[in-house]
Amino acid sequence: MKKANKKVNAAIIIIGNEILSGRTQDINVLNLSRWLNSLGVKVEEVRIVPDNEVAIVHTVNFLRKRFNYIFTTGGIGPTHDDITSKSIAKAFNIKYGTHEAAYKLLENYYGYKNFNYGRKKMAMMPKKASLILNPSSGAPGFIVDNVYCLPGVPSILKSMLGGLKNKIKGGKKILSRTINAQTVESEIAIALKKVQDKFKKVDIGSYPFFRLGNIGVSIVIRSSDKKKIDGCYNQVVSFLKKKKINLIEKK
Amino acid sequence: MKKANKKVNAAIIIIGNEILSGRTQDINVLNLSRWLNSLGVKVEEVRIVPDNEVAIVHTVNFLRKRFNYIFTTGGIGPTHDDITSKSIAKAFNIKYGTHEAAYKLLENYYGYKNFNYGRKKMAMMPKKASLILNPSSGAPGFIVDNVYCLPGVPSILKSMLGGLKNKIKGGKKILSRTINAQTVESEIAIALKKVQDKFKKVDIGSYPFFRLGNIGVSIVIRSSDKKKIDGCYNQVVSFLKKKKINLIEKK
Repeated sequence: MKKANKKVNAAIIIIGNEILSGRTQDINVLNLSRWLNSLGVKVEEVRIVPDNEVAIVHTVNFLRKRFNYIFTTGGIGPTHDDITSKSIAKAFNIKYGTHEAAYKLLENYYGYKNFNYGRKKMAMMPKKASLILNPSSGAPGFIVDNVYCLPGVPSILKSMLGGLKNKIKGGKKILSRTINAQTVESEIAIALKKVQDKFKKVDIGSYPFFRLGNIGVSIVIRSSDKKKIDGCYNQVVSFLKKKKINLIEKK
Repeated sequence: MKKANKKVNAAIIIIGNEILSGRTQDINVLNLSRWLNSLGVKVEEVRIVPDNEVAIVHTVNFLRKRFNYIFTTGGIGPTHDDITSKSIAKAFNIKYGTHEAAYKLLENYYGYKNFNYGRKKMAMMPKKASLILNPSSGAPGFIVDNVYCLPGVPSILKSMLGGLKNKIKGGKKILSRTINAQTVESEIAIALKKVQDKFKKVDIGSYPFFRLGNIGVSIVIRSSDKKKIDGCYNQVVSFLKKKKINLIEKK
């Protein structure tokens, strides 16, 4: 059996008081989930935790044993509230200190003269970590075992994903098809349940929308099996036709 | 001692495959966090879980014993993938079935003739739940003990918060002040840490920004103690002045 048939999953840990306080709108979950999906990795849980060592250590240790991959975002910058690197070392009970390769990389990036205390702190991490290169702002992320630590700034995070691609071994890709129907959920609930009952291993999601003057329902069919998706799709389209419900074209 | 001095916290559980797959950008965390903050309730953890009973039951039962309030969003609609109500009943090991008051309310809202299977399903919930009224689309949310179940559609969720206000007993309000400085984090890391070390019970967050042609750092000071915030604020402004770092005016 090829590796690609395995189910591969991940959890994301968003670290940052600014998300929990409502100061900042997170978009890293969306970006990471889409990217992981495209590699055949299914995100099965997200946790958002504060800049608090106990919370980070507990969350990392709970999740890393249960998921193939863990991605953390945030808390690897130069200031006092950036405590992810130290917390990861604690979670794994491994040495924390100046990472030689990261130090060299940062010294080279900033130049000897400008390589100040804050910047040097960004070379402090689990000493045995592998680095994740940062093409947009120098300071690297890092990997310990199955835990991948990325920065919180979305544009920087995104710029680092390209270099990670080959390190992630995904399973079968999760495919999806969407049907947008001009109806309300309650009108199709029974028929949709019948299709779901026939296709137990396909995820059928139903999402009402209200926009552009349209009221409708997006029916999203997800599976790694293209044939099952198509079978499911046809049955949904067929019951919508019987009910004289129009389809809506949108992206 | 007045109740208002207590620390009151909450956790949010976002239920929905569509968030984990990256199909949908969550904004309920932001809206709920801001609203809870304004009532003196600090959100200390968020979990995003799939439409899966085991995951929901486990997450609710873990969190509800550790936080004053739990808010769930999503999964209370009419379709097969809406399993929050049933899962909450299971988590509390209480009866699930047609909730009389919810049934009457929905029958009245839709009219006898249009009160179909899907709509009746929205009256199925823990039988002893209290209802959360929904001024925008009829179907109520519900409360069991300290668990508040709200819909996933952000506009509907927001419309239901007004009616909940008096049910939430917050603690001291968390106040904040923000300083936007034209600098980079590494330039101020040491000075900022010194201020944080002096004001141990104040949360000082440091967030770099890159926008409108400006590079800068937002320093956010949060506490329920106005005096401490102001003291902290003055010390930050003072070290910025010494370092000849300009402040940036923005919202």
